[in-house]
Amino acid sequence: MNNSFGQMFSITSFGESHGRCVGVTIDGCPAGLSLAETDVQKEVDRRRPGQSPGATQRTDEEDKVEIISGIFNGRTTGAPICLLVWNQDVDSTQYEETRMTPRPGHADYTAFVKYGGFNDFRGGGRFSGRITVSHVMAGAVARKLLGCFGIEILAHTVEIGGIKAETKGLDDIKRNLETNSLKCADSVATMKMIRAIETAQAEGDSVGGIVEGQALNVPAGLGEPIFDTIEGELAKAIFSIPAVKGIEFGSGFAAARKKGSENNDPFVVENEKIVTSTNNAGGVIGGISNGMAITLRVVFKPTPSISLKQTTINLKNQKADSVSIRGRHDTCVVPRAVPVVESMMAITLCDFALRAGIIPEVLE
Amino acid sequence: MNNSFGQMFSITSFGESHGRCVGVTIDGCPAGLSLAETDVQKEVDRRRPGQSPGATQRTDEEDKVEIISGIFNGRTTGAPICLLVWNQDVDSTQYEETRMTPRPGHADYTAFVKYGGFNDFRGGGRFSGRITVSHVMAGAVARKLLGCFGIEILAHTVEIGGIKAETKGLDDIKRNLETNSLKCADSVATMKMIRAIETAQAEGDSVGGIVEGQALNVPAGLGEPIFDTIEGELAKAIFSIPAVKGIEFGSGFAAARKKGSENNDPFVVENEKIVTSTNNAGGVIGGISNGMAITLRVVFKPTPSISLKQTTINLKNQKADSVSIRGRHDTCVVPRAVPVVESMMAITLCDFALRAGIIPEVLE
Amino acid sequence: MNNSFGQMFSITSFGESHGRCVGVTIDGCPAGLSLAETDVQKEVDRRRPGQSPGATQRTDEEDKVEIISGIFNGRTTGAPICLLVWNQDVDSTQYEETRMTPRPGHADYTAFVKYGGFNDFRGGGRFSGRITVSHVMAGAVARKLLGCFGIEILAHTVEIGGIKAETKGLDDIKRNLETNSLKCADSVATMKMIRAIETAQAEGDSVGGIVEGQALNVPAGLGEPIFDTIEGELAKAIFSIPAVKGIEFGSGFAAARKKGSENNDPFVVENEKIVTSTNNAGGVIGGISNGMAITLRVVFKPTPSISLKQTTINLKNQKADSVSIRGRHDTCVVPRAVPVVESMMAITLCDFALRAGIIPEVLE
Amino acid sequence: MNNSFGQMFSITSFGESHGRCVGVTIDGCPAGLSLAETDVQKEVDRRRPGQSPGATQRTDEEDKVEIISGIFNGRTTGAPICLLVWNQDVDSTQYEETRMTPRPGHADYTAFVKYGGFNDFRGGGRFSGRITVSHVMAGAVARKLLGCFGIEILAHTVEIGGIKAETKGLDDIKRNLETNSLKCADSVATMKMIRAIETAQAEGDSVGGIVEGQALNVPAGLGEPIFDTIEGELAKAIFSIPAVKGIEFGSGFAAARKKGSENNDPFVVENEKIVTSTNNAGGVIGGISNGMAITLRVVFKPTPSISLKQTTINLKNQKADSVSIRGRHDTCVVPRAVPVVESMMAITLCDFALRAGIIPEVLE
Repeated sequence: MNNSFGQMFSITSFGESHGRCVGVTIDGCPAGLSLAETDVQKEVDRRRPGQSPGATQRTDEEDKVEIISGIFNGRTTGAPICLLVWNQDVDSTQYEETRMTPRPGHADYTAFVKYGGFNDFRGGGRFSGRITVSHVMAGAVARKLLGCFGIEILAHTVEIGGIKAETKGLDDIKRNLETNSLKCADSVATMKMIRAIETAQAEGDSVGGIVEGQALNVPAGLGEPIFDTIEGELAKAIFSIPAVKGIEFGSGFAAARKKGSENNDPFVVENEKIVTSTNNAGGVIGGISNGMAITLRVVFKPTPSISLKQTTINLKNQKADSVSIRGRHDTCVVPRAVPVVESMMAITLCDFALRAGIIPEVLE
Repeated sequence: MNNSFGQMFSITSFGESHGRCVGVTIDGCPAGLSLAETDVQKEVDRRRPGQSPGATQRTDEEDKVEIISGIFNGRTTGAPICLLVWNQDVDSTQYEETRMTPRPGHADYTAFVKYGGFNDFRGGGRFSGRITVSHVMAGAVARKLLGCFGIEILAHTVEIGGIKAETKGLDDIKRNLETNSLKCADSVATMKMIRAIETAQAEGDSVGGIVEGQALNVPAGLGEPIFDTIEGELAKAIFSIPAVKGIEFGSGFAAARKKGSENNDPFVVENEKIVTSTNNAGGVIGGISNGMAITLRVVFKPTPSISLKQTTINLKNQKADSVSIRGRHDTCVVPRAVPVVESMMAITLCDFALRAGIIPEVLE
Repeated sequence: MNNSFGQMFSITSFGESHGRCVGVTIDGCPAGLSLAETDVQKEVDRRRPGQSPGATQRTDEEDKVEIISGIFNGRTTGAPICLLVWNQDVDSTQYEETRMTPRPGHADYTAFVKYGGFNDFRGGGRFSGRITVSHVMAGAVARKLLGCFGIEILAHTVEIGGIKAETKGLDDIKRNLETNSLKCADSVATMKMIRAIETAQAEGDSVGGIVEGQALNVPAGLGEPIFDTIEGELAKAIFSIPAVKGIEFGSGFAAARKKGSENNDPFVVENEKIVTSTNNAGGVIGGISNGMAITLRVVFKPTPSISLKQTTINLKNQKADSVSIRGRHDTCVVPRAVPVVESMMAITLCDFALRAGIIPEVLE
Repeated sequence: MNNSFGQMFSITSFGESHGRCVGVTIDGCPAGLSLAETDVQKEVDRRRPGQSPGATQRTDEEDKVEIISGIFNGRTTGAPICLLVWNQDVDSTQYEETRMTPRPGHADYTAFVKYGGFNDFRGGGRFSGRITVSHVMAGAVARKLLGCFGIEILAHTVEIGGIKAETKGLDDIKRNLETNSLKCADSVATMKMIRAIETAQAEGDSVGGIVEGQALNVPAGLGEPIFDTIEGELAKAIFSIPAVKGIEFGSGFAAARKKGSENNDPFVVENEKIVTSTNNAGGVIGGISNGMAITLRVVFKPTPSISLKQTTINLKNQKADSVSIRGRHDTCVVPRAVPVVESMMAITLCDFALRAGIIPEVLE
């Protein structure tokens, strides 16, 4: 079931970029959660295009969320919850043209091979960033559910086009997250990032970046070693987001340059609670949460769709060819990816919380 | 089934560091594969201690592989294959002492919380690096199976203690992999790495590093988007190895600093085969293999077990305490982790090849 | 994922009897299958009410099938296929009244307990026979797919209200299946069955019966012992149909009264093919198909919803109460269950055929 | 993972009839359960041969249970529990002879097809009844765990060779279960059953029968519709036992001859608890337990291995041939199957209880 994720809070994604809809079914959400379409709409709106510099022009699309099963009298019933948005603003003309000249860095070629050419190639089909509307719809439900148990998820942009944001405190992150057009906590770096995006856009090019995610107030003891670890499941979840090429937890790749004495997090007691005085572990040890914030960083490659002319081949005759991508594309997907990262974190942690019995089958 | 991994080539791990044995059961291996205990022994020997500088002294342990089911007349039968090594050289005395003072950076505390104190804490129990003998036994079978279809897996050390190896070609990697004591292709860097390990050891400290893995001759079209992607499943598999804190594919985190025009891999035809002239994608686009080498890098944190005195708390009274770890521990796990990374890559790719029907249910 | 079934041909069911819709998502259908809404509509129409004596009056409902994802240019794409029918003819008034007096034999009480009273009780919600529209929609796709490989599924009524049909040959079964109002091959018995239904209906009561299913041309070698056996998976699939209380394969319960020498099926060669001269095994030995027709019988209890007054309790005060069920209900569900049994057989066998590589990932 | 069963209490079976061992790994057993090898030995001894008339002569086999992982200080640790018995009394000579003449009613032929002739055919290999030692070892742990929550499982013989036992009360069943050589509550019927077995044995033939299983004190609300129903999962579990050809719950196939007014179970209040005054539902409605005893009946076909000469073909030349089975076989497997049915019931219900959070991750 490769379009499904999660053992007890399980989502099944469906839909295509230029098909009739994009949707998701959630199986295993406890009964009794108060849930309205507006709860989900709010999160979907956060990933809408046209809000940040360099985002796609596909702005007419309303992305109006509909919940078509699983809710009764304003609450979840324990039955599967199906959510979808209908596609409206679809322009597929350019895709027919470029069909046989696969775009470098894009899934055109691999999808063609895997599905024998039967895949819906319009707008990338199942491989479009648009598919992440499903992630965000399911994530909205997961976040609301986690919220009932005090668990909070937030992500923010920490690097774009080689510009790194300065490390900020939780208050700054929360304050800036919704007002800053790049969802970055450092407003000085944001100005430079915008310039980097604008430059790339002017050059017909694109830029990548890094998103940091945090899960706060996660109780110690979540996670199921040795394969269903917190890190392993979060990684699998996050790699379902197009353009992700790496993930690290806590000190991550920097741990390669540290001594054990620097990287180990000493245990201390604070307010009668066992905590660690640093968080190089990113909240996870042995695949199990230790009660500290779960922190991860995710790298997004530069958008593969660029208007610069690129070398490719023609699938019809296997001869050299070139492709220059018109159509509507994000110069930088990073800001729009922030709610998607949050969503996949929320879905994964809901699943673990249900597995551990922290979240019960029925809410009071 | 958190101690199992894989849909069609599925492994189930069992055993503890200081229990009776460490074992693994493989379900879904095709019938007809020629397989002897020596095939597996060879790989297990590659992760044995006492072969590289700074490795644990647990050297008396024979780790003699036994296959106790699933083989008949020297071939796999289609039935589950159970492999195990019996534990022999076990010294558990120190663990009782330090039981209530959890080691920073180690799973002592999180396991205690999750399992209510019932976990086998001796030598880290299920959280010991010793558990990866199971990974390697299953990996040996997977590698042999992949070999029948021309797919080759190899990993090597690329960084230890802040010392980076120079990029080497495949020939150098293969040549040095088995002769170099750190499993590093760059023999100049190896000297410096050894010194870094020795210094850390002398200081009672430890160092981390980075392993690079490659899968060669993987056909295009493997991988099951959107959740069971090549990257997602490999990441999940790799995070089951103790001390891993991050993973990246192809250009990985460096992609954050690249333009789309630099990071996209142009398609070209070489020897009548569609390839890309660069491999920033690390062989995976849209979660599906593109026929290029699958390349990943994995960061291992410095071994948490160090003899330097560290700050911790006492679980009995939640008071501040300290711990200094005696016992036998690797100053650097990286070289011994190389075959473990290879093993998890092989297991994951076997699973994908079976799902795609590339590997049939019965071998000829 | 309790609302999902199947490893490689996986379905996820959603929707409620009186909610907005009833739907299903199929994940894992190979790319390249020609598929139109009419292919599915045809099967859904076979389970529509108002066609057989004693069926519910919910006849205005069009049950118009919509495929909202996974099809492009008239063929499957390899992406999830979402199918649904919108609910139209919904009268929920009676359910509010009887909410606190659970109907004997119905899931009112168990759903109330499990979902803490949050379940959508209108028309039985998720526990209504209407849910099987999802089974049939997915089954239609599975049957079309199996048809490409020569595998044929057919079921028929063999007993209703204590009236047993005589054993008929395959030709009779096929001929009568679509013309006989009870989907029974024995037209003499049918007359008696109709009378039994009419009598029960006049008495405000209901009757049960037995459906026999057959899968023809299944190649030998399908099935995955020891837990994912043909029989085990078919049984699990079939028990998802409301009112099913038992299943047997081949000689089934009658085998308890046979000698081994009678019940064993002798192997013989016919037309250069190994077959058995009898089929007491029902086409399955050791959980694996043997190439003979897979035959099973499924018992459906009498419809629990009857207009006769029944003893129950009131959930509000746990006092004795009674309930008499108005509303539209089938006096006998058996004829309408025939395509549902066929559907679950088809879905299960598709899954096995994909697991065994008999059906490839991409159709030519 | 076809040799695994269960979502949260998951077992993985391995081993062969004439290989080195038969074993099972349990993943997901809560930490803190007191467990000794004797707890398991006791149940394994109940299925040992040589205790009932017509049982196989393989009596020298000690079947000594060893727990080789997952226990520490006499309690479960939360880690996988691996249990095994080593095979000792193995006589494989006859199997080589009859290898190419598949025994009617046995899995010789289907296994040969599925595994391309690589399967271990000695003593039936993976398809031998001996494999159920794994079921019983895992079942012993499940029963002990359920016992901590007051849930009790018991099965008994209700029919052998066409002789039906009279319906007995729970007290009679419990009293006779361990003392009666056929595990039948009706001692009068037992005498006739023994005669039927002896007659069949004398004739070189075999007989089948029916086992009834009950689960007592199961709380209402267990079960996960619509696919992971109590009945569906139990059926799947039970069909993993060799020779099973049918299963029914509550009134089962007899429900086909009942009116709704007879078959519906009226709700009443007894001792302030909601119960039903009859139990035609067998404790399950809508796939969910209703608090009444879960009751099922399982039919076992007559043992396929008989010494009478039978018609078969020769796989080498596809010519007609015959086979007469020597070796040690049960004339009737029913009494020995009783603890196996109990075991699969216990394993399945443990899984549901963990999924519903009735059994926690850690026992106090």
